[in-house]
Amino acid sequence: MDAATASVARPSGDVESLIRLAVADMAAVDALIVERMQSPVAVIPALAEHLIAAGGKRLRPLLTVAAARLAGIEGGAHHRLAAAVEFIHTATLLHDDVVDGSQLRRGKVAAHLIWGAASSVLVGDYLFARAFELMVETDSIRALGILSRASSVIAEGEVLQLTRAHDLKLTQDVYLEIIGAKTAELFAAAAESGAVAAGAPEARIQALRAYGMNLGMAFQLVDDALDYGGTTEALGKNAGDDFREGKATLPLLLAIARTAGREDAFWEKAMGHPGDQTEADFRRAREIIVGCGALQATLDLAGSYADAAKAALEVFPAGEWRHALEGLADFAVSRRA
Amino acid sequence: MDAATASVARPSGDVESLIRLAVADMAAVDALIVERMQSPVAVIPALAEHLIAAGGKRLRPLLTVAAARLAGIEGGAHHRLAAAVEFIHTATLLHDDVVDGSQLRRGKVAAHLIWGAASSVLVGDYLFARAFELMVETDSIRALGILSRASSVIAEGEVLQLTRAHDLKLTQDVYLEIIGAKTAELFAAAAESGAVAAGAPEARIQALRAYGMNLGMAFQLVDDALDYGGTTEALGKNAGDDFREGKATLPLLLAIARTAGREDAFWEKAMGHPGDQTEADFRRAREIIVGCGALQATLDLAGSYADAAKAALEVFPAGEWRHALEGLADFAVSRRA
Repeated sequence: MDAATASVARPSGDVESLIRLAVADMAAVDALIVERMQSPVAVIPALAEHLIAAGGKRLRPLLTVAAARLAGIEGGAHHRLAAAVEFIHTATLLHDDVVDGSQLRRGKVAAHLIWGAASSVLVGDYLFARAFELMVETDSIRALGILSRASSVIAEGEVLQLTRAHDLKLTQDVYLEIIGAKTAELFAAAAESGAVAAGAPEARIQALRAYGMNLGMAFQLVDDALDYGGTTEALGKNAGDDFREGKATLPLLLAIARTAGREDAFWEKAMGHPGDQTEADFRRAREIIVGCGALQATLDLAGSYADAAKAALEVFPAGEWRHALEGLADFAVSRRA
Repeated sequence: MDAATASVARPSGDVESLIRLAVADMAAVDALIVERMQSPVAVIPALAEHLIAAGGKRLRPLLTVAAARLAGIEGGAHHRLAAAVEFIHTATLLHDDVVDGSQLRRGKVAAHLIWGAASSVLVGDYLFARAFELMVETDSIRALGILSRASSVIAEGEVLQLTRAHDLKLTQDVYLEIIGAKTAELFAAAAESGAVAAGAPEARIQALRAYGMNLGMAFQLVDDALDYGGTTEALGKNAGDDFREGKATLPLLLAIARTAGREDAFWEKAMGHPGDQTEADFRRAREIIVGCGALQATLDLAGSYADAAKAALEVFPAGEWRHALEGLADFAVSRRA
């Protein structure tokens, strides 16, 4: 499938259908999130609220809710699991921003620049622990197993990324392994735990896990593409951040491979000392990445993950939840921010 | 009870009796620790081993094992819980050392100075997640609840300490609340979860929780006293660290209160800008803290917590495990490092 076919064949999808279907569930999840991030130690709710109120689309807890609903849940265990998933995600964001020295998160100044790195580390720990308290309340050892396993895979992926992030010879396989661990695993676990909470048969649990995993891959690939294609306002983080930090993401890795011999001098100059880059370097890199087809190849790969996500849902009968999840997979690729 | 009586009346106790009794259990725990800190991402086992091999006395997992044995456990669930407790402790040490910028830990260069703060944060997260995976394998939701609750209390205590650590007007109550959360809670949870794994009756579970909590308070108070009374070699950290970091621990807080009006100028000079202190300032502070009885008062308070720990064990019939735990409580106060 070439790029032109891909962009013609794929519906743009949307996240709004899912948000609409899940509105009551997500209100319950939000209430739990606000309740459980409280503490008499004032800096904890202040810092947590800064990040959580900025919100974004709450994709991961939305996945838990949608998976639970698609699998026919009764009762409210999925609300606790969804809130736990959001806390795990928030904890990793807090720690990531400290580790990367990021300036912006969700369009706001990163928490560690306001409250200090120490508070960000410790409030991350607090939210992570609170996530496990929420899971314990659901009484589901299996959901606890899924999300504790996901948490160790994420941390492992982050360490792997830390040690390999600036390696411009990273293969596509290792790159996909890293984003699988640091991003897609939580999408997978979020959906899987929702299905488990609903008591779904094993095949449906695995189908929802596969949906989440493939969706997560698509999202991360598009994120990495947008860093060379989007604008700062639309992204809520600075376009070009990955490039300036010297991060080896797929668009860059593919472009370096595709322009070997021709642009080596430029890549060495620009990525050898990322701190010395100019804005012109970023514009030039973007030109090369777009021009050699690396950006489109990244989006195409994202598209094939989105297709796999949709295919995984075929074990479920047609219905509004399945349809909305299919739309989310398309949206993951078509979004521009 | 005055200081002289206390030091005459209290047996010195020891930790060796407990270590001897628990030798087979702890070998199983150590094997699990080594097995579960592995990862194909090489920096993870390297960093974890640096800290875990340095070891110390493994007091917290020892408590889990001892509590489980005293409560008559059959099977091996306590090994997994004990390894989980040590992972939680190791994770908090890694994060603490980043937060405090500590130079030494367990007599070795702190991990973040070798592998960087980012790795310490992420490997801490990894070990924390691995701890929960171990707990899940025991199938005990109650133990998971105890240790996830302890983890959030610890993080909350660390944040409270971070925001109040340099407040020389800290009351004794707030100080005790901080060390209760950041240290004693894990001792309490370690013992409580061991008792839960053994299926002990509620009164015995609560007795072991109380033992752990009081033991933890005694240990931390003596640690804080030793920072003004011990030597660097014996401590495995630098004596005077708390003073140099401007940390308001009980010996200092009591001394400031007891010498109000008389030594205000010295405390202001020495603690107003901890970075500008001289070695002479530390010697002078130590003289005042010893001279006004603040050091002994701290040790006396530790002694009363140790007594409470021992008293909590009275619900158990006499026997070698109970005797060894009583000896540990005495050792907590008599130790010189």
